[in-house]
Amino acid sequence: MSTCEANCVSNNHCEGNEAETFKEDVADAEIREAEKILNAFLCYGLYGREMACRTMLSFKKLSSSHKDIILQSHNDHMRNVLKCVNHNQEILKKIISYGLSVFGEEFATKTRRIRQKRRPEPHYMSKILSTLRQIVREWTVEGKPERDATYKPILDFVRERYSCASERSSVKLMVPGSGLGRLAFELAKEGFTVEGNEYSMVMLMTSSFLLNACFEVEQHVIYPYALDKSNSWSYEDQTRPVRFPDLGKSRTEAPPNFSMIAGDFLEITQSRSSQFDCVVTAWFIDTAKNVIDYIETIYRILKPGGTWINVGPLTYHYEDMIEEMSIELPYEEVIRIVRLTGFVVEKEERITSYYTINRLSMLQNQYTCAFFVANKSMHC
Amino acid sequence: MSTCEANCVSNNHCEGNEAETFKEDVADAEIREAEKILNAFLCYGLYGREMACRTMLSFKKLSSSHKDIILQSHNDHMRNVLKCVNHNQEILKKIISYGLSVFGEEFATKTRRIRQKRRPEPHYMSKILSTLRQIVREWTVEGKPERDATYKPILDFVRERYSCASERSSVKLMVPGSGLGRLAFELAKEGFTVEGNEYSMVMLMTSSFLLNACFEVEQHVIYPYALDKSNSWSYEDQTRPVRFPDLGKSRTEAPPNFSMIAGDFLEITQSRSSQFDCVVTAWFIDTAKNVIDYIETIYRILKPGGTWINVGPLTYHYEDMIEEMSIELPYEEVIRIVRLTGFVVEKEERITSYYTINRLSMLQNQYTCAFFVANKSMHC
Repeated sequence: MSTCEANCVSNNHCEGNEAETFKEDVADAEIREAEKILNAFLCYGLYGREMACRTMLSFKKLSSSHKDIILQSHNDHMRNVLKCVNHNQEILKKIISYGLSVFGEEFATKTRRIRQKRRPEPHYMSKILSTLRQIVREWTVEGKPERDATYKPILDFVRERYSCASERSSVKLMVPGSGLGRLAFELAKEGFTVEGNEYSMVMLMTSSFLLNACFEVEQHVIYPYALDKSNSWSYEDQTRPVRFPDLGKSRTEAPPNFSMIAGDFLEITQSRSSQFDCVVTAWFIDTAKNVIDYIETIYRILKPGGTWINVGPLTYHYEDMIEEMSIELPYEEVIRIVRLTGFVVEKEERITSYYTINRLSMLQNQYTCAFFVANKSMHC
Repeated sequence: MSTCEANCVSNNHCEGNEAETFKEDVADAEIREAEKILNAFLCYGLYGREMACRTMLSFKKLSSSHKDIILQSHNDHMRNVLKCVNHNQEILKKIISYGLSVFGEEFATKTRRIRQKRRPEPHYMSKILSTLRQIVREWTVEGKPERDATYKPILDFVRERYSCASERSSVKLMVPGSGLGRLAFELAKEGFTVEGNEYSMVMLMTSSFLLNACFEVEQHVIYPYALDKSNSWSYEDQTRPVRFPDLGKSRTEAPPNFSMIAGDFLEITQSRSSQFDCVVTAWFIDTAKNVIDYIETIYRILKPGGTWINVGPLTYHYEDMIEEMSIELPYEEVIRIVRLTGFVVEKEERITSYYTINRLSMLQNQYTCAFFVANKSMHC
């Protein structure tokens, strides 16, 4: 249904042997990174069982009268949690056993060979945990309100802007930061020629599994909240199943107009310009170390007269990473620079939405997103 | 206006010399803890300047064309941020110079003597940062919607339950986890005899300053969002002032019916029973390592026929502290144990509220709180 191209290797320019060595170093670094990610995928079960163990150790410290009070419900719950964790682990194994193939067989073999199961760094485990929630957001009935809040204004806009459905296959759209692929997929279903782009290997493998290996409606089950302990109304809420995907995808009628490119947005667009009629960025621009680079790149890759549609907050991803450069501009600065770059801003709105919430939790992160549409001049 | 009693010393039972040594150890531990807190209060300015420095270092790494784009607004903003940080530091100094006195002159002198300004642990600095937001929540006009959401149902309930205003001074209320004292203060203003209780020394010093040293409406200014960088609409939003307190308090007409007890809720109630007509817990029960201890203690300290009013989520404070015991029960278990302990549950509702949000940020933490009223049997 979609073609995934492994395009992670940096495009930096070097010459001769130096270039070869550089490429090998980069490839090795990628395999080491992939190995850490695979390791985290495979260690989820271990992590979950350790979490459950901690809960049970606290239980042991209770007085016997307190133990008696919660004994039965607590034991039943812990048994359920462990079942959920084991099941989630099986799904994660399915994801990597399918998803790894998108990086090529040689890469997959090399990565598998050097794997040793060991405790993953918290950073990598948190990616796995958030992937379970991202599946809910993008590919389940539960996630529909979240998706509708910010995808619907985009879909409404492009439907109106490119109103002749039969001409849409000649309209080239790019979706940087396409995550698990749902928005790019929806745009392709509308008839556009869509290029998704994603940097995270965890997201790429999972999206490949979702797009290319999940066909039946509610074919699979995950328990995304099994390890949540705070802010619950009931034990049942914590261990409830969520089924995915919410829609079936025909195995035979794959739209030829949908591709996914792996790699850093700035790198994969380095030598491209005036290629797209429309760039759609949803929950993306705050992944930048320097958002001005993103704005200028989007301007360059758009055809003259092309349109940029953006929706999302400004939760800058590198803000807390002390060793990284990070420029955190407020919205007023972002939109000033959008205009300064040459865009004419056509529309500005504020949209309220949640993001990867557990809808039955007492705590929900609510975002007010900036939605804007900006056009590149016809003459440039 | 309020009397604060330093009652942090553990009530554990020891005898003779052993008891003396133990008391000294505990006292020393408290002074060391106090010294760390004072240090964090005094190092806020340094912390803020370091944060600003990191932003400026990232700015330096920009290309000269990107520097040119944001130079003026960026420089103006950084100047404002530094002004805000310096001003906040002055307020924090005022808080400790007043607040420390509540622990007694000897304690204050001893603590001051051993202080050396040095980099505080992140844990302590985060307490200072959250205190600025807590001031907004409890003692400003901006915080009113947050307070109203969960304080108003409590105030409405007690006004109706104890409808004869002239008899309220004989009604004894306890407010565990009273934070910066606003809810306890509001209940005292209604005429009840109120005992607030708070464990955190940061909260105790700040509440003492707010209750006993702030008299005029909007006497002081803080800039609680000066160091926020993500999710802003404008630089102006980040450096906007918030004035406190939102109400004036007469210096002469101090209500005699309001006291604050410092210390751990379980410790300060250890030898008490059947003392209160009403216990009000707002955003408190999830501070427990074992919430069953809290439920049983509240039952014990209530008079027969007494009432427990609770509102808040279940964001268990010790959930992420690996070295601590933590029992995280969902609401259905909490309310089952409330009944099992002997309470008759009179009312159960769900209330939506925010907590210490920056109302102009793109991101807001929204809580669905459990609100319940439970009564101790008349015959026990």
